[in-house]
Amino acid sequence: MRICSERLQIRTQGKGTYEISDQVQAAVSKCQIEAGTVTMFVQHTSCSLLMMENAAPAARRDLERFFDRLVPENGQDYEHDDEGPDDMPAHIRMALTRTSETIPIVSGKLQLGTWQGIFLFEHRRASHTRRVWLTIIGE
Amino acid sequence: MRICSERLQIRTQGKGTYEISDQVQAAVSKCQIEAGTVTMFVQHTSCSLLMMENAAPAARRDLERFFDRLVPENGQDYEHDDEGPDDMPAHIRMALTRTSETIPIVSGKLQLGTWQGIFLFEHRRASHTRRVWLTIIGE
Amino acid sequence: MRICSERLQIRTQGKGTYEISDQVQAAVSKCQIEAGTVTMFVQHTSCSLLMMENAAPAARRDLERFFDRLVPENGQDYEHDDEGPDDMPAHIRMALTRTSETIPIVSGKLQLGTWQGIFLFEHRRASHTRRVWLTIIGE
Repeated sequence: MRICSERLQIRTQGKGTYEISDQVQAAVSKCQIEAGTVTMFVQHTSCSLLMMENAAPAARRDLERFFDRLVPENGQDYEHDDEGPDDMPAHIRMALTRTSETIPIVSGKLQLGTWQGIFLFEHRRASHTRRVWLTIIGE
Repeated sequence: MRICSERLQIRTQGKGTYEISDQVQAAVSKCQIEAGTVTMFVQHTSCSLLMMENAAPAARRDLERFFDRLVPENGQDYEHDDEGPDDMPAHIRMALTRTSETIPIVSGKLQLGTWQGIFLFEHRRASHTRRVWLTIIGE
Repeated sequence: MRICSERLQIRTQGKGTYEISDQVQAAVSKCQIEAGTVTMFVQHTSCSLLMMENAAPAARRDLERFFDRLVPENGQDYEHDDEGPDDMPAHIRMALTRTSETIPIVSGKLQLGTWQGIFLFEHRRASHTRRVWLTIIGE
């Protein structure tokens, strides 16, 4: 049993979902761990992780619109708006989705379902460089 | 320290919550790991994991009704509806709950709270066979 | 590789967010694990874990108000209300946030982002003593 750490840097171009499945698989392969788990951890509170259908882009657009309606940028009276109207909605959308996620590894491969992808869910309008820590534990 | 993997197959009969605590405990016992963690991972994007009160069925009915209202099958104009009106709401309800969950093991037992159960939360109307990967790490 | 378990007891004084980052770091330091992960697990279904901005208290107040509106204590007709009007909303707010969360450890330190804190999110009005299991795996 051993541990391997990797840090991904993801460049985002405003609100939306960015698939990172290939980068996570590449990190697992680089660590040469055949059986175990990879834990992903987002070091931010205004973006999050999302496991989602990765075949139909329309599904992700619907999901993004749902979050836009559920946590609107206007129409709510937020006390905290230091960084603009997308500041507080970003924190709430993060809280409603995930910060860490753990995926099994078998024979060196992430055990994702057929249409299941890993996404970084960016909640801010501006471009950001986002850090995702990967901790791979196994043998 | 060692790793043990098990795959549960859960047969669902339409939308609702299905308790799997006993199956998870049985897999932990079979692996004979006394101290560590079990990580559960759902290989789907239209069902999810739910930790929930397992004594009062009314609590789960209320929770299911809440999600029916929050993410309605009609009344929203979803772009993605290839598989019917429950297709897109299923993905959104999954995103709002959990895909992976990690539970501690002490003396070979899951450290669940007194009224805490593990549930598969099925979001589709039709019957499905759902796969949940368990990765048990410990000694 | 080894495993270390610790159990935190958190005294809450009604609904709100209680930062526990320091207690989690103290447990990690006590276990003397330099590289690995800490998994937190809440043994309750009426409080939850929340990763959140820890600099601006206004951000947490906004988030708490959002959940009060999204899952109101009145105005919905809950079937399950054995323990009062905050009973069922507590379970739903728990389901929408997190029960377990896994954070990387590097050089003995939690790899939290600059403004990222770990909070216990209490959903009940009365005071409670809440248990959070920590499982620290690493070397």
